[in-house]
Amino acid sequence: MNTVIDSGIVEQHNAKAMANLEADYAALGGMLARRGKDIEQLTALAQTFAVALPSWGVGTGGTRFARFPGPGEPRNVFEKIDDCAVINQLTRATPLVSLHFPWDKPTDVAALREYADRYKLGFDSVNSNTFQDQLGQAHTYKYGSLTALSAESRAQAVQHNVECIELGRALGSKGLTVWVGDGANFPGQQNLRGALERYLDSMRGVYAALPDDWQVYIEHKLFEPAFYATTIADWGTSFACATELGPKAKCLVDLGHHAPNTNIEMIVARLAQFGKLGGFHFNDSKYGDDDLDSGSINPFQLFLIFNELADASARDGEAFKPSYMLDQSHNVTDPIESLMNSAVEVQRAFVQSALVDRAALAQYQQDNDVLQSAQALKHAFRTDVSPILAMARLRSGAPADPVGCYRASGYRAKQAELRPAKAGASSSGIV
Amino acid sequence: MNTVIDSGIVEQHNAKAMANLEADYAALGGMLARRGKDIEQLTALAQTFAVALPSWGVGTGGTRFARFPGPGEPRNVFEKIDDCAVINQLTRATPLVSLHFPWDKPTDVAALREYADRYKLGFDSVNSNTFQDQLGQAHTYKYGSLTALSAESRAQAVQHNVECIELGRALGSKGLTVWVGDGANFPGQQNLRGALERYLDSMRGVYAALPDDWQVYIEHKLFEPAFYATTIADWGTSFACATELGPKAKCLVDLGHHAPNTNIEMIVARLAQFGKLGGFHFNDSKYGDDDLDSGSINPFQLFLIFNELADASARDGEAFKPSYMLDQSHNVTDPIESLMNSAVEVQRAFVQSALVDRAALAQYQQDNDVLQSAQALKHAFRTDVSPILAMARLRSGAPADPVGCYRASGYRAKQAELRPAKAGASSSGIV
Amino acid sequence: MNTVIDSGIVEQHNAKAMANLEADYAALGGMLARRGKDIEQLTALAQTFAVALPSWGVGTGGTRFARFPGPGEPRNVFEKIDDCAVINQLTRATPLVSLHFPWDKPTDVAALREYADRYKLGFDSVNSNTFQDQLGQAHTYKYGSLTALSAESRAQAVQHNVECIELGRALGSKGLTVWVGDGANFPGQQNLRGALERYLDSMRGVYAALPDDWQVYIEHKLFEPAFYATTIADWGTSFACATELGPKAKCLVDLGHHAPNTNIEMIVARLAQFGKLGGFHFNDSKYGDDDLDSGSINPFQLFLIFNELADASARDGEAFKPSYMLDQSHNVTDPIESLMNSAVEVQRAFVQSALVDRAALAQYQQDNDVLQSAQALKHAFRTDVSPILAMARLRSGAPADPVGCYRASGYRAKQAELRPAKAGASSSGIV
Amino acid sequence: MNTVIDSGIVEQHNAKAMANLEADYAALGGMLARRGKDIEQLTALAQTFAVALPSWGVGTGGTRFARFPGPGEPRNVFEKIDDCAVINQLTRATPLVSLHFPWDKPTDVAALREYADRYKLGFDSVNSNTFQDQLGQAHTYKYGSLTALSAESRAQAVQHNVECIELGRALGSKGLTVWVGDGANFPGQQNLRGALERYLDSMRGVYAALPDDWQVYIEHKLFEPAFYATTIADWGTSFACATELGPKAKCLVDLGHHAPNTNIEMIVARLAQFGKLGGFHFNDSKYGDDDLDSGSINPFQLFLIFNELADASARDGEAFKPSYMLDQSHNVTDPIESLMNSAVEVQRAFVQSALVDRAALAQYQQDNDVLQSAQALKHAFRTDVSPILAMARLRSGAPADPVGCYRASGYRAKQAELRPAKAGASSSGIV
Repeated sequence: MNTVIDSGIVEQHNAKAMANLEADYAALGGMLARRGKDIEQLTALAQTFAVALPSWGVGTGGTRFARFPGPGEPRNVFEKIDDCAVINQLTRATPLVSLHFPWDKPTDVAALREYADRYKLGFDSVNSNTFQDQLGQAHTYKYGSLTALSAESRAQAVQHNVECIELGRALGSKGLTVWVGDGANFPGQQNLRGALERYLDSMRGVYAALPDDWQVYIEHKLFEPAFYATTIADWGTSFACATELGPKAKCLVDLGHHAPNTNIEMIVARLAQFGKLGGFHFNDSKYGDDDLDSGSINPFQLFLIFNELADASARDGEAFKPSYMLDQSHNVTDPIESLMNSAVEVQRAFVQSALVDRAALAQYQQDNDVLQSAQALKHAFRTDVSPILAMARLRSGAPADPVGCYRASGYRAKQAELRPAKAGASSSGIV
Repeated sequence: MNTVIDSGIVEQHNAKAMANLEADYAALGGMLARRGKDIEQLTALAQTFAVALPSWGVGTGGTRFARFPGPGEPRNVFEKIDDCAVINQLTRATPLVSLHFPWDKPTDVAALREYADRYKLGFDSVNSNTFQDQLGQAHTYKYGSLTALSAESRAQAVQHNVECIELGRALGSKGLTVWVGDGANFPGQQNLRGALERYLDSMRGVYAALPDDWQVYIEHKLFEPAFYATTIADWGTSFACATELGPKAKCLVDLGHHAPNTNIEMIVARLAQFGKLGGFHFNDSKYGDDDLDSGSINPFQLFLIFNELADASARDGEAFKPSYMLDQSHNVTDPIESLMNSAVEVQRAFVQSALVDRAALAQYQQDNDVLQSAQALKHAFRTDVSPILAMARLRSGAPADPVGCYRASGYRAKQAELRPAKAGASSSGIV
Repeated sequence: MNTVIDSGIVEQHNAKAMANLEADYAALGGMLARRGKDIEQLTALAQTFAVALPSWGVGTGGTRFARFPGPGEPRNVFEKIDDCAVINQLTRATPLVSLHFPWDKPTDVAALREYADRYKLGFDSVNSNTFQDQLGQAHTYKYGSLTALSAESRAQAVQHNVECIELGRALGSKGLTVWVGDGANFPGQQNLRGALERYLDSMRGVYAALPDDWQVYIEHKLFEPAFYATTIADWGTSFACATELGPKAKCLVDLGHHAPNTNIEMIVARLAQFGKLGGFHFNDSKYGDDDLDSGSINPFQLFLIFNELADASARDGEAFKPSYMLDQSHNVTDPIESLMNSAVEVQRAFVQSALVDRAALAQYQQDNDVLQSAQALKHAFRTDVSPILAMARLRSGAPADPVGCYRASGYRAKQAELRPAKAGASSSGIV
Repeated sequence: MNTVIDSGIVEQHNAKAMANLEADYAALGGMLARRGKDIEQLTALAQTFAVALPSWGVGTGGTRFARFPGPGEPRNVFEKIDDCAVINQLTRATPLVSLHFPWDKPTDVAALREYADRYKLGFDSVNSNTFQDQLGQAHTYKYGSLTALSAESRAQAVQHNVECIELGRALGSKGLTVWVGDGANFPGQQNLRGALERYLDSMRGVYAALPDDWQVYIEHKLFEPAFYATTIADWGTSFACATELGPKAKCLVDLGHHAPNTNIEMIVARLAQFGKLGGFHFNDSKYGDDDLDSGSINPFQLFLIFNELADASARDGEAFKPSYMLDQSHNVTDPIESLMNSAVEVQRAFVQSALVDRAALAQYQQDNDVLQSAQALKHAFRTDVSPILAMARLRSGAPADPVGCYRASGYRAKQAELRPAKAGASSSGIV
């Protein structure tokens, strides 16, 4: 297996970190043992965790006001794969990459697959893009894609999704994520019901092209780029559409795509209950679709989501297998660092949720012991599982401290030399 | 037909108002004619409008901090019917009353029906109450009703709903509205999925008791009294449950029960599209479930909701018949005045929505003429249809100005004498 | 005076519209007379209304996802002035233009002033831009401008604002609007208090450069581009800073820059009371800083803001002179049409607010007649003052229907020929 | 010193808990030592922490829909003091009680002071109540208190506040907290500026009655009971008023009184910077003024608030002394348990904030190392300081596990016998 960072650097890093880590691990192990928990089981569990990387996440993001590029940004899909390989090498938690077409469309699909395979990276669900007009595109999406009143725009959008399925198939992917920004900026701009009818009609065309072992994930979002009415704005619409389309259609939950004050973990519980939870775009937010690093704003919410996932797993067993992906915009950090750190934060919530004593919780609930049932969750959340995560990495060949090791490796500085910035790429100026 | 206000007072009022009204009506008629609209058609349409009254709305409401009672509040269901009769006499827009049990439970159902019938008042859907414990109640709802882990509490809640159906049947009602405040105040308090499973199980029991020509309306609400997770919190959950239960189950939309920034008219469009729009609780709000007078905070939103209803009517014809009810809390106004005024505001939105030129709108949309499609709605909304509403009342036997006529009648002062306030009723002190 | 649209087109348009307009005007005049209002006074008042145009508003806007350009977009500040001249010619409500530097920085300031003067266009407050890095800029704003920890970045940002004042002075402007996107995306990124201390220090430098008859407007915004903590996030911070800086510093209210559910008209009342209301950026929004056309989403809110402005004018007289500007992003409409229409919507709210019977309102309030005090505002808002606005335009030499006349003029089609699109300008691709 | 719970029960409890606690404490101590932190310093710091108890918090709360009473609720201020004494005995973190008048108005002030003193309980700021009408009150607050248009209502409200100061003085309190629900439910109901002018005028009267060593805390709240415009709705208004009134007037921050998405820790930073941070009402919320247990919904936010407080302490030293109080409504838990648990949660955030390495954080910020500056906070927050809190309690004579010990004591069951419920107290029925 190829590695991007020299494995000697990882070993050297871990050699230094080992003494402290083992001491912390033993201390935590003792504390857990006194609560009747086996740290080794948790570490083994942590090692099973995986969350996919978004190919677009390794570049610096921005807002409509500006983009402030960072050094050494990847300039094509192969360089993006390199960066993803770094992240997976240093976390062992991100073995899959999610591509976005046409941004990542390769001229030689087989070569791309082989390139990733050398890093032992696979491909998660592929993403279509009908929220932008590409150069030379025949029909505009200015007034909608899958929902456009123009039959040509709709057909083009369906055809693009079908092409994405074909590309994904060649890459070994098993899913298609469909997010459309379609909607209206003003009351009256669209017939709201007509738009959803056209969406369903278009999606039936996409659905028909799905291989038997594929799923299509419907991603909803409250607003942006549409600012009055987004066609797929909430989980209710997503759920109704997935139900209409059939068993291969499921719902995707992005943590930043909800109205203020929404209880997202309850949406997770509902979709799990009705068999339509397809997957996640993990990130965090305070205001809107802020696309901040996972767990950076409200880590307890992330834990509560994983608490629902643990509950669903306990109920539904192997049948319950939602797809996990990061979806973040890194505007002021090194994207590789943010993605490593975010993968670890999601993994943290996963391990913490395994600490919940579900039998005790059920009993507290049965007894209407509200305070203790709440504390059962808080107790798990409060546990600092950092030594478990570090030990899991170490045992999987990754460094105890991914960011520290990454910085020591000098990877970014080297890429800054190898990948000079494109001129004029600095600012968008769209306001 | 009995009337509460002496009809001479109405006639006298209208005699005075007539000259100005006729002049305004003629002026508006001319303006509409120049836009190709026939004012007489609109007036006839306005006369067909009806919205039900909530029996609990004729008393003064309050908050958890305090209730400031008003003079002459009704002390029993018969006095509530009297007040509702005033509202309908003076607006001719509120021929039905919606009762709430056990608050309004009569000892003699037939006598109540006859009492209302003398005013030509009928009964809209009945409302069950499992959000409070009643004196002498066997099992508490402190930890839930239809979703309680206690089988006894659940059975009691189901039985109460079945009893409401029986009472409603005897009163000539055709629907049951089920709102439960059930939910959790803290993460962990409830298994979110388990709570909904119990809800569905309980509701199957209620559903089984519905007569063939009845409907049950599921009312969702984001929060309050549950402050972390409400079991029926959003339209998605309401829709999924109504689908599970069967064709007699529909969704009820209360305008104050949504997350901030929610596009309510889109929810209306979605429920209409999927055949599950059962009815409305009209009111207005700026923050939460504020239960303010309809149209008082965001009248354009009320119009946009009626614009969707007009679209659904145009598509689905007679099959589309959602139930309209006011649901407001009148804390600082005379409840009769607020209800009259609110009925008129809802009727106003209904008439304004009929002014939308749907053919022109469809053409603007087809042409992606966003500005003119938005203006097509604004043009209708901007039209001051007050003379149409006043003339419709006049032709139906009601006064041009309901509030003015009501004040002239001295009804409230008379009730203040007849209905002395209960001692100690002033403050709740629940904080 | 130069005109962009041939005045014959306007005259021809008005000749056709006149008969209907006069009939509508007479009808409305009669209705108002019956309410004791003189339509001629209102029309004269409407003619005095003015709102400034944002130079950046005449181009097509976009989001971080995409920009879909329209035909004939202006390519420099002179072409922007041409488009603004069209808007003012056809509405007579937009005699001032607000420039944005360095976007609009002219090589020859005097030539620009003369160019605008030929259209009788003046210059409103100038806007600085420290939220983007310009090509060749010495110090980056990636980590802040006026608040940056880098002394060089701060000094550069101060110097840019001082240069804006100098440019504005040469153009005849009397104000500087300072909006900074500075802030943090993550807890910990900034010392919140330190950032505001640096802001104040920088602003003292800017303030010191203000001519005696100038004002500086501090514009706050809840979020975007900073997604965790924006330094100038709310009116409280804006007010505290304006107080610290001195009498020439005032607060600017943009309608889309507040937390959900905020009562904006109350902020207007507060700033007016404490003497710090500097001006407005008018637009509308449903979710965030959506920058939609004024009055398109919540026209009653716009009216309520003008109701406060009317109250402040009645109290403070001539001393109360806030600056009005449109600030919108036109993503799916012709920007000229949206700006014309928006100027008319703001003017509409201004005229409606003059219809409020303030003496009657004060008496209702004094009597705690809550219902009638609310109706006093609704009555004014419901009045369709369109004939007044059209007649005011006509008397000022503008067309009854600006959009209709503009379309008839063929201006956009002509510009589409004269101003070919820049290649590759279609999409931002910042996600 | 009197104790409510037999001290033998506490000793017995701690004897059982000691072995595990010492092991956990040693394990954590080792982990902290490896990070360069001294656990003993943190434990000593924890012992200094204090937060006041709200007298109204020891009874069961409710909503406008219902109140579900619990067993053994206190029936007068002496029984409330008993319950508060339990909380302080078992946490050693709540030595002060905050009274609410007239609810807690004693017939014999000296006796009440002596009664509390026997428990070594003191009195924090006193609270006035002008949001309810009391039986026999001369003038109603239905249309406002300090802001009422009625001069009699205003004078009565001022006089009540002055009386509260006198009562507080006799009790040894040093502050008055003024929260008024005054405001409007409808646009037009109030002249917004007039209401605040009257508020300031009334408050000048209250301010004049403050002893030299007192402070008055202005508490703002976005909405409820006023549902359109609350006179003191946001920190900006609170700050402007405190500035107008003088140095003894400060602002009080209740965590549930803000618009959705508000960054509360930034408000804390602003008020600290401008010298106007008076104190806190701690609680937690997901939607509105939910008054849930502190730290139960968003514990990271609580930590971030204490991070600002730690920053302010580091800057301003002893001069910075805001007042801390819990303000919660306990609807489904034992109020004593919730208050003990909440005191511990606030203490937890206090101790965690002391773990932040401020020098390292400042350096990361200086270097624009955004990721590590964010991690510096997360690292502190993630640390499970439970053993520190337990050891601090133990050393102060309280039990390791307050809730466990309380349950073992049988206090509630005993009170249920001694304090039979008032008949008819079950439901409010205000909707």
